[in-house]
Amino acid sequence: MAKLDLDGIFPPIPTPFIKEKVAYDKLASNVERWNTTGLKGFVVLGSNGEYVSLSEEEKRAVVDTVVQSADDEMLVIAGTGCESTTETVRLTEDCAKLGADAALVVSPHYYGGRMNETALVKHYTTIADQSPMPILLYNVPKFTHINLAAGLVARLSEHPNIIGLKDSAGNVIQLGEIINAVASDFNVLVGTAGVLFSALTIGCVGGINALANVAPKQCVAILERVKAGDLDAARKMQLKMIPVNQAVTVVYGVPGLKAALDMLGYFGGAPRLPLLPSSKREKSEIEAILRKADLLP
Amino acid sequence: MAKLDLDGIFPPIPTPFIKEKVAYDKLASNVERWNTTGLKGFVVLGSNGEYVSLSEEEKRAVVDTVVQSADDEMLVIAGTGCESTTETVRLTEDCAKLGADAALVVSPHYYGGRMNETALVKHYTTIADQSPMPILLYNVPKFTHINLAAGLVARLSEHPNIIGLKDSAGNVIQLGEIINAVASDFNVLVGTAGVLFSALTIGCVGGINALANVAPKQCVAILERVKAGDLDAARKMQLKMIPVNQAVTVVYGVPGLKAALDMLGYFGGAPRLPLLPSSKREKSEIEAILRKADLLP
Amino acid sequence: MAKLDLDGIFPPIPTPFIKEKVAYDKLASNVERWNTTGLKGFVVLGSNGEYVSLSEEEKRAVVDTVVQSADDEMLVIAGTGCESTTETVRLTEDCAKLGADAALVVSPHYYGGRMNETALVKHYTTIADQSPMPILLYNVPKFTHINLAAGLVARLSEHPNIIGLKDSAGNVIQLGEIINAVASDFNVLVGTAGVLFSALTIGCVGGINALANVAPKQCVAILERVKAGDLDAARKMQLKMIPVNQAVTVVYGVPGLKAALDMLGYFGGAPRLPLLPSSKREKSEIEAILRKADLLP
Amino acid sequence: MAKLDLDGIFPPIPTPFIKEKVAYDKLASNVERWNTTGLKGFVVLGSNGEYVSLSEEEKRAVVDTVVQSADDEMLVIAGTGCESTTETVRLTEDCAKLGADAALVVSPHYYGGRMNETALVKHYTTIADQSPMPILLYNVPKFTHINLAAGLVARLSEHPNIIGLKDSAGNVIQLGEIINAVASDFNVLVGTAGVLFSALTIGCVGGINALANVAPKQCVAILERVKAGDLDAARKMQLKMIPVNQAVTVVYGVPGLKAALDMLGYFGGAPRLPLLPSSKREKSEIEAILRKADLLP
Repeated sequence: MAKLDLDGIFPPIPTPFIKEKVAYDKLASNVERWNTTGLKGFVVLGSNGEYVSLSEEEKRAVVDTVVQSADDEMLVIAGTGCESTTETVRLTEDCAKLGADAALVVSPHYYGGRMNETALVKHYTTIADQSPMPILLYNVPKFTHINLAAGLVARLSEHPNIIGLKDSAGNVIQLGEIINAVASDFNVLVGTAGVLFSALTIGCVGGINALANVAPKQCVAILERVKAGDLDAARKMQLKMIPVNQAVTVVYGVPGLKAALDMLGYFGGAPRLPLLPSSKREKSEIEAILRKADLLP
Repeated sequence: MAKLDLDGIFPPIPTPFIKEKVAYDKLASNVERWNTTGLKGFVVLGSNGEYVSLSEEEKRAVVDTVVQSADDEMLVIAGTGCESTTETVRLTEDCAKLGADAALVVSPHYYGGRMNETALVKHYTTIADQSPMPILLYNVPKFTHINLAAGLVARLSEHPNIIGLKDSAGNVIQLGEIINAVASDFNVLVGTAGVLFSALTIGCVGGINALANVAPKQCVAILERVKAGDLDAARKMQLKMIPVNQAVTVVYGVPGLKAALDMLGYFGGAPRLPLLPSSKREKSEIEAILRKADLLP
Repeated sequence: MAKLDLDGIFPPIPTPFIKEKVAYDKLASNVERWNTTGLKGFVVLGSNGEYVSLSEEEKRAVVDTVVQSADDEMLVIAGTGCESTTETVRLTEDCAKLGADAALVVSPHYYGGRMNETALVKHYTTIADQSPMPILLYNVPKFTHINLAAGLVARLSEHPNIIGLKDSAGNVIQLGEIINAVASDFNVLVGTAGVLFSALTIGCVGGINALANVAPKQCVAILERVKAGDLDAARKMQLKMIPVNQAVTVVYGVPGLKAALDMLGYFGGAPRLPLLPSSKREKSEIEAILRKADLLP
Repeated sequence: MAKLDLDGIFPPIPTPFIKEKVAYDKLASNVERWNTTGLKGFVVLGSNGEYVSLSEEEKRAVVDTVVQSADDEMLVIAGTGCESTTETVRLTEDCAKLGADAALVVSPHYYGGRMNETALVKHYTTIADQSPMPILLYNVPKFTHINLAAGLVARLSEHPNIIGLKDSAGNVIQLGEIINAVASDFNVLVGTAGVLFSALTIGCVGGINALANVAPKQCVAILERVKAGDLDAARKMQLKMIPVNQAVTVVYGVPGLKAALDMLGYFGGAPRLPLLPSSKREKSEIEAILRKADLLP
């Protein structure tokens, strides 16, 4: 199986809802607009896609919608991680049939205390053995409360069908350790846009970043400036984007990301309950942050 | 709606698997055996039931099996908490139709950082408003990484359809704070058998305890001795059971609980992947612990 | 060396300051008042005594003052734990010379990541080997961020000069594990008054509790009611004291404890910087809590 | 007061002990050797200097020794943070008299729960107001369990006598937030050598790094290559140094740092108890790591 080249910026796109139902048309129109912004592709069913609040049927329909709406040259990576290994295999197969290019598999985590290296190796290799498409590991301790350390990533990277990692730990030392430990064609992508510049300069090939939903061109610019050796411009853009990234991640979360999308002409809408939409005060703070970063006219 | 009286011991029963498939017959035979041990009822689809690894269809079939197998006077409480509020409502309705007596609703937790009091009140009251059967809150920070504090519990306890709480935080101060804050007919049950004695003496009405799967009579004895005012006997039984409880919870987890059940004549079997079965060495340690506690001949 | 019998209630007394200087006369008058309240003795230089903000010279003078002011039959336990083993030995020797009856030795913690069982055994046995007075272990994860687990406590309890433990982890399961693991003459004292009742009923001999500074008679009453088998009265007093205890520990800290003492006719005063005194609003909240618990007229 | 320019690499030097006593001659000879390696100066009495295990008298003697041994153009920064504000002021004054150029003041942390922004601002401004030499903030959550966030640092950076920060949080996003928030002449130094390259490229002026004790020239090379715009060389050196840095910090701690120094011709020796020296096995692992990084012949 030829390895995919993932050197680029991918937004983990939110799932739009109207009155608690998935708004597939809004999803499609968002994707069509993102098509023109220089992104390498899309991640669907990630943490920002509220995958934990979607039924299996909705998950398949979301992947289908994005595959149909994305430009041909754009990659579609589907979040297929479930708590159970078997369910993950099944959803991965389904998403492959729907045309996804790769699967992003979050670590199982409810029984976090038992997710030692042996269990995680068994889980991921079982999936990778059976998956018709390549697998990316997904490390997001903020949500899972477990960490996929460099040693484990290196071990799993030797599987021919595990082609990369999204690491959202925000730990640049760990990114360095991983880059030291894996082969050069293993795709290490950073999941935390606040360190996109640092991740790229230490050796990551790209990013899967909530920020890329609201500031796709700016994320792409950081990548291109780093590639071009124009560190100063890249650094300045990174520093400018840090407050925006904090806003759409740790400070205001998925509701804030959706509120920001609404301000930027995309469809954001309300998250599915139990997530509450941003309050008026929060929206006003988000707007000020977007404005200060020159993302609003 | 008349409030249920939950003063007793409930085991959160494991879901048996054979080659990754739910073994409903083994589940039924386990329940039939537990019927004779003095328990007040059963909790199905809890953390020990690997609810996160079951499909909706399996969840319904598990509840159906237990409702059919449980003695008439025994209560069946179904774990119906999902990440999404709407999905929780739907599953709660399904389980009520299948004959469950109450629902145990774990706090949503993937977006733990956003699960503030407002979000949790909205989530739980939405469910309680729509549920045809009474609701119990389920606080299990070990797995969810969020805590339902006494103030929130007190506030939710005022809802007529929220009749109790399973608190697995293991924090006896918090149990005291909750008992201080709720009405006397609100059922506070402790989820951590290592403090069953202390929880009962401070004012809990019962327990939902992994330990009650493997030592039902001993858990019931602690409750009865406390009720009878024979503190010394209750205390001694509690101290004797602490190592067993640690074994089937924090030390060896759900796999260890299942291994212990196998040793005791129940069907335990292997957990569903990604959980790995206990190793030979672990099983031997568990056996020694059971033997020392006089649970094995 | 004859083992001390520590079955009773000890307040870990605050160190009074006036304009940042230790107010020894206020300390003495506080002690004289506490002498009449049924306490078993005093702990000086504990966390509530701001020991980390006292010079060695001040520490010795504080111990001297309390030894002189305490009634003859009352025990004086001095907090002598320092980060360095040698410095702890020296301070322990000094306090013994000044007339302290035992030393309470907090675990070293700055290099918490290296404080494994081997290091802690070496630290504590070195101190116990050289100390002219008996040693109590002091486990306070809230401040030290490390935990002295039951296995370590059991191992150290075999040293003839280590006679007990103050466990402020607030974890009643762990108290049970410790009581299971140590000889019956090893003094297990609970450091968290919110579980004083539960600790005593599970087998602790007494308590070293911030609450005992402001509610000494109530703490003593809990102990005496438990001893007398009047569980209901003990339980009611415990539940009544929980809000007061939370106030003078986690909610308002040492400054709140001192504010409460001022309201109760003791000298509390301001803590030493960097601790700030309670604000007006906080004092008003503390007063309401004391009043509700019938500690103020 | 003219602001110091701290753009360079500083090792936080260990304090050598022989049989638990400070070996001042070994300290001097170490410093003399480091004088020739391109470093900007020295930090004494930091976490790697076991400052928590030194008496006040020893602290002064250590500073005196280093001031005497350091080359004239090298800066000497003394760690003067104590738990009490007043004690910190006094030690800062003493160290200034002994010839130190600046003070590095770790956040007080024993009462971490009370170290809110108000308390920390009061603490640091009290010290800065009275200090005869400039102050650097020291943020080291690994040891203190509290974090000095960007907003607080920005606020404190406005004090004319607070000239910089050592941030050992290892969080590159936070470094970016701080750089966004402070004036350009405020010295932001990174305390975690695993992200030295990333910190410098995002805008830090230098580093105070345990690694600089054992690999001073390599740390200086990373700084110089970044300044020269040779990112690739800097990045490669950073990646090569990550395993060494992990070894002398999180993996083997201060004992490991001292063991590495012994292997490299400096005097390392044993730490003071309760820290235990590295075991034979650990030393052999450290040696292999040093060798692989070309630090040993």
